Amino acid sequence: MSAADLIAVLAANHLRYDFARPDDPHNDRLIFSKGHASPLFYAFCRAAGAITEDELLTYREQGSRLEGHPTPRLPWVEVATGSLGQGLPVGVGFAQTARQLDRLPYRVWVLCGDSELAEGSMWEAFEHAGYENLDPLVAIIDVNRLGQRGPTRYEWDTGAYARRIGAFGWHVIEIDGHDVDEIDRAYTEAENTNGPVAILARTTKGSGVQAVADQEGKHGKPLSDPDDAIAELGGVRHIRIDVAQPDQSVHPHRFPSDTETTRTTYDVGDGEATRDAFGAALTELAKARPEIVALDGEVSDSTRLEYFAKEHPDRFFQFYIAEQQMVAAAVGMQARGWSPFCATFAAFFSRAYDFIRMAAISRANLRLVGSHAGVAIGKDGPSQMGLEDLAMMRAIHGSTVLCPCDANQTAALVAAMADQPGISYLRTSRGETPVIYPPAEQFGIGGSRVLRSSGDDRATLVAAGVTVHEALAAADELADEGTPVRVLDAYSVKPIDVATLTEAARATDLLVTVEDHRSEGGLGDAVRAAFDAVRTPPTIVSLAVRTMPASATPDEQLRAAQIDRTSIAQTVRSLATGPADHQ
Amino acid sequence: MSAADLIAVLAANHLRYDFARPDDPHNDRLIFSKGHASPLFYAFCRAAGAITEDELLTYREQGSRLEGHPTPRLPWVEVATGSLGQGLPVGVGFAQTARQLDRLPYRVWVLCGDSELAEGSMWEAFEHAGYENLDPLVAIIDVNRLGQRGPTRYEWDTGAYARRIGAFGWHVIEIDGHDVDEIDRAYTEAENTNGPVAILARTTKGSGVQAVADQEGKHGKPLSDPDDAIAELGGVRHIRIDVAQPDQSVHPHRFPSDTETTRTTYDVGDGEATRDAFGAALTELAKARPEIVALDGEVSDSTRLEYFAKEHPDRFFQFYIAEQQMVAAAVGMQARGWSPFCATFAAFFSRAYDFIRMAAISRANLRLVGSHAGVAIGKDGPSQMGLEDLAMMRAIHGSTVLCPCDANQTAALVAAMADQPGISYLRTSRGETPVIYPPAEQFGIGGSRVLRSSGDDRATLVAAGVTVHEALAAADELADEGTPVRVLDAYSVKPIDVATLTEAARATDLLVTVEDHRSEGGLGDAVRAAFDAVRTPPTIVSLAVRTMPASATPDEQLRAAQIDRTSIAQTVRSLATGPADHQ
Repeated sequence: MSAADLIAVLAANHLRYDFARPDDPHNDRLIFSKGHASPLFYAFCRAAGAITEDELLTYREQGSRLEGHPTPRLPWVEVATGSLGQGLPVGVGFAQTARQLDRLPYRVWVLCGDSELAEGSMWEAFEHAGYENLDPLVAIIDVNRLGQRGPTRYEWDTGAYARRIGAFGWHVIEIDGHDVDEIDRAYTEAENTNGPVAILARTTKGSGVQAVADQEGKHGKPLSDPDDAIAELGGVRHIRIDVAQPDQSVHPHRFPSDTETTRTTYDVGDGEATRDAFGAALTELAKARPEIVALDGEVSDSTRLEYFAKEHPDRFFQFYIAEQQMVAAAVGMQARGWSPFCATFAAFFSRAYDFIRMAAISRANLRLVGSHAGVAIGKDGPSQMGLEDLAMMRAIHGSTVLCPCDANQTAALVAAMADQPGISYLRTSRGETPVIYPPAEQFGIGGSRVLRSSGDDRATLVAAGVTVHEALAAADELADEGTPVRVLDAYSVKPIDVATLTEAARATDLLVTVEDHRSEGGLGDAVRAAFDAVRTPPTIVSLAVRTMPASATPDEQLRAAQIDRTSIAQTVRSLATGPADHQ
Repeated sequence: MSAADLIAVLAANHLRYDFARPDDPHNDRLIFSKGHASPLFYAFCRAAGAITEDELLTYREQGSRLEGHPTPRLPWVEVATGSLGQGLPVGVGFAQTARQLDRLPYRVWVLCGDSELAEGSMWEAFEHAGYENLDPLVAIIDVNRLGQRGPTRYEWDTGAYARRIGAFGWHVIEIDGHDVDEIDRAYTEAENTNGPVAILARTTKGSGVQAVADQEGKHGKPLSDPDDAIAELGGVRHIRIDVAQPDQSVHPHRFPSDTETTRTTYDVGDGEATRDAFGAALTELAKARPEIVALDGEVSDSTRLEYFAKEHPDRFFQFYIAEQQMVAAAVGMQARGWSPFCATFAAFFSRAYDFIRMAAISRANLRLVGSHAGVAIGKDGPSQMGLEDLAMMRAIHGSTVLCPCDANQTAALVAAMADQPGISYLRTSRGETPVIYPPAEQFGIGGSRVLRSSGDDRATLVAAGVTVHEALAAADELADEGTPVRVLDAYSVKPIDVATLTEAARATDLLVTVEDHRSEGGLGDAVRAAFDAVRTPPTIVSLAVRTMPASATPDEQLRAAQIDRTSIAQTVRSLATGPADHQ
């Protein structure tokens, strides 16, 4: 109710949107960053004739497209909101897409709440949009003075917000959010401004209904007497708004694609870091795939996205150290059909976890690449080590989690990711690892590789990434001792290769998982889950990082965490050479 | 090298710190938010005589206290840094502690980088400190123009930062960061200012050594010719700084403790939401435990921290919707010996995951309480549902993860949390659940409860939180059909009760886990991990949320996710009544 006038004027006089073709790239974008204003969004859809009165009344019922917070279940919602502070950063992504990728004149309107201005992610968005002078972006800020549990910091002092947002390089307009003329003039001013615009609208929560207007304790609660409220608002009306059609005169930009592409290959036995292979592979893949774009959090020299930046500067986006904004922008870009790869340290994706979670609700196709995985990074210490990333990414709905161990495998998985829907995550390592696969080897999502196998294996070592090489070394040592073991490279941590694990369990009955990750939520848990509902599951022993690492060399780190070749071999010796029921 | 002059002048003329007593509450706090400046911190410790020349040379070696980024392994480091954008928000926590809890005149100095100003969490800190006018806080911002991979957005334009930070209510001073007189005057001005102060110091990265000064590509790399560099810097010197002692005239404040406390109890059979029980229990516990403080992310009406706020307003801190700042402030408070409880929606702790991860490296004792867990919240939809929280929290080093199912159990676990070191997490539910435990029942961390058991159980249902009640209903239904099953309330998800699970597996050989959480990283994975290295592990079937929920009533949600009583009973029927090898 506080933002109804703001949206009514927008819909009637300024928005350009074709409800019949929500995928039309020429449409303006309208994002409700304050997702809890969903009744207003649905009322707007109703006024535009997109939904019926009957459907409007299914709000929040099972099976309804009209959820408590907007999601893409409704075709006119491109991104889910409801976790505050996300709609504006996503809007930044749309705005950057409009200007640099689609190269279309659509505008990006984002309805924000005043409470969500407390979220740092909003200031990442203000900073990025201000610095980039993102012209098509308009933040409509509904300053209704009341948060969920009481007054906001600055209540109706729009000047407090204006000073802050203005300092970030935005043009700021302060208005009465219930004065339709002022609203209309503000939108016109925004349309005629070169750069991002914030409209700070003083509004009344529960506007128009005395029983709730500007009162605390009414957030998210139905009216106790809706008939009175409707009468007070002027009675039942069937207002119909004709939303203007978008300008379709300009075709969306597409980058040329290069039909002759190379792929860097690596010779077996050479050493190469998987982060290097990622950087090279993405750069090459993007030549043939002009929809691929890359986003950096100011660590492209570490993630090797710098290779991409050099080759494809028009498709490379620098977000500085603002991981939330980086992921949010990617969500906006993929909603417009682009294929974004975001890269930072594996550890620092934890900064954007809420955005990744929400991206899954948005049904986003998002590729995330985390470098510097695990204790194997060495001396920089635990703050830089991705040790919870597999747990975090596995728990995301519909996600894919990949952990390559060599350069050729990395290149193959980067290509596979580009075609994978949903949230996919690739984990790369800082240090060199030996190339063990020939360049032509194919790796599919959901697969694995048996690297050592005999007819008499006493155990199966299941590893991924850097631990594959430790497992191979342990296997060689054990084989020399007369204890052959199978080695499985479980590069696809999710989905995991259930069939191959099942076969390994049938053959050896003892599985030892080895991961450079915490013992919870990673490879060990994934392998155990592969035996869900299995009548006689195998014995599974999980080697993982169970201490708090400090600085040390990579080899010392692996040893200290007991995920090195010696620890693996010792574990097998203590178990597989035991009672005969394990053979 | 860019910040050496800044720290030298601080240490010589302004800092008050007793290296012999790092736990002295009167000490100033010095936080290196730019943790990668660790060589400077250790050089400062050396100049102050706290460490030897020999120890200084162990930098980043295995076993050294001088890690790549500072951690509390070194006694003069209270909080770990190295993930950028965290030191200042933690400093806000110290500053608020100084003023409102300790009530001591110590100052909080935070050395920040210019690159990390891109992190939204820094702006949460600027906003909070500015609004609270946090007097003892001084941000020393080392504007050396160069990030890790290239120039920052504004390079040496300190005015760009000054406008932004000034707009958030801070006093801002712009100086030449290599002019010791200017530096000294700035610190004096900061000491004499009422409110938070940011000193924006233009500096040169690699200052004093021509081979690297102000050059890209030198970040985090050793000098190629250190001898030349040392000569250029004036040769080897053994500078000794006498850091001033803190003022110890004022005793730290302590709140009075109430010896006569009550504890709200709940009658078996009544209904009560665990979030309500949490709010009541913490409020009562805090009467006897004056060190307990509570932090809110503007959802205290939902988490029920509002009860605490009403009873203990002096120990309640409002952070508005800024979860990163909330958790960071708690890290600061606990470092000073206070016992902070942070509460928000379970889903929204995902916003602060990097801070929780770093808190573990800081060896923090932190209590986190996430409400609105799972699909059982009902109609608000997936953005509000905590569905990844168990995975996220389990993966944190040394963490405790608790998931109570009734009000009396919740109260007991809140008390247990207050004594638990490390990061502990309590998961509460939005809706009422029946009270099943009498008020006197004791619940320890690591325990569980067998709620149904017979001599002839065909399976064990392992549940936690809301699914306990579904499991009980399923068990009753199955018992009526002649299929008795055991029911285990695994309220301690980490550490999990291995002994009781082992006994259940011995008795029934089929375990069905049921959780209102994603299938990855939660209760199912925890139960499976309890059988690590077990020779003949039981059959385990995991029921969890495997679809993307939408709006629906709580009962409809549980049914749709197939974690309701009917689905549980059906799963047992399909498996336990199968072949005889499962009895």
